[in-house]
Amino acid sequence: MKYHKIPDETIRRLPIYLRGLLLSSEQGRQSISSRNLADFVGVNSWQIRKDFSYFGDFGTRGVGYNVEKLTKQIKKILKLDAAPKVALVGVGNLGSAVLAYPAFRICGFDIAAAFDINPKKIGKKINNIVVEDASKLRTLKKRRINLAIITVPRDAAQQTADALVKAGVRGILNFSPCYIVVPKKVKVITIDIAMDLARLPYYMPAS
Amino acid sequence: MKYHKIPDETIRRLPIYLRGLLLSSEQGRQSISSRNLADFVGVNSWQIRKDFSYFGDFGTRGVGYNVEKLTKQIKKILKLDAAPKVALVGVGNLGSAVLAYPAFRICGFDIAAAFDINPKKIGKKINNIVVEDASKLRTLKKRRINLAIITVPRDAAQQTADALVKAGVRGILNFSPCYIVVPKKVKVITIDIAMDLARLPYYMPAS
Repeated sequence: MKYHKIPDETIRRLPIYLRGLLLSSEQGRQSISSRNLADFVGVNSWQIRKDFSYFGDFGTRGVGYNVEKLTKQIKKILKLDAAPKVALVGVGNLGSAVLAYPAFRICGFDIAAAFDINPKKIGKKINNIVVEDASKLRTLKKRRINLAIITVPRDAAQQTADALVKAGVRGILNFSPCYIVVPKKVKVITIDIAMDLARLPYYMPAS
Repeated sequence: MKYHKIPDETIRRLPIYLRGLLLSSEQGRQSISSRNLADFVGVNSWQIRKDFSYFGDFGTRGVGYNVEKLTKQIKKILKLDAAPKVALVGVGNLGSAVLAYPAFRICGFDIAAAFDINPKKIGKKINNIVVEDASKLRTLKKRRINLAIITVPRDAAQQTADALVKAGVRGILNFSPCYIVVPKKVKVITIDIAMDLARLPYYMPAS
């Protein structure tokens, strides 16, 4: 089955549903209604049903969704079922925080490598991952790692991205607050935490 | 002028436009077409024009937008024009990274206070901000700080949110990978970096 013309907003919400399902599963739930899932993740239940309708029929009317089955289906759609390997470049404060982040493993990721240019950091173990010399980025291809997280300072972001692309990386999660230029075959998602903070005052009620 | 029924997606894009405008301004641009802004921020130009149409007429046909004027208008819509003060709670790896993040100041925020419970951190200066004892959160009301960033461990997130709400905080940017429960008068935006990573494999071309 091919998935055509799925709105990007739907794809953005799938990981949120996935997290909700994983938390429900932790709490011992075996099935969940779209209304319960809606309360859980803060999205309208009609929106959830609409999002799921793009992928066929997930639920049984009156019974709700089977948590385990739906989790598997969403993981498959998002291509998370193969436990994708991820490399992280830049083990500063932010990089260390990301390495210690528990939710990656829950979603099915395997943070398999970390790199830095600082000799004091190379060889050190952070969250069971030995920091490698950033000059070894080219080994990623052989290791079949094609996803990477960039947590280097802004000035080093573009050259890091270039090295990653050269090493066969096809998906980059970029935390440096700048645009990076990559070939079309590479997908970049840039996270700028200031952009999220910038929305907050708008939503705040006048006091 | 009141802004009615503005789609949430439009509000989400305004900070992205703002960042694009601030970068254009840094580069010495005084005016920018919707097409140039589109290239700059990675959003379609028709989408930009549609988003701006909710707020009246921003541009002059054939001339483009005045960068300075548009920046001011977006800041005003987002209520960033008053240089909102922000407190950060939890000065670990992630909190330290956030404190050092340059883009907050650019967007108009003033990170005015930082708190932790660790005696070794209290009194230390990070990015010109002296870390205070988290037991002093209640002073935020008097200091007119009603925005906060939570970067504490997951287990401490809810109690931190409770203390912030008690201290008059009305907007929270939550980095702890968990749901926090707050009264309706408080807006929470939760950032889960795993959720963004989880979208990446979907977009990657088969190789």
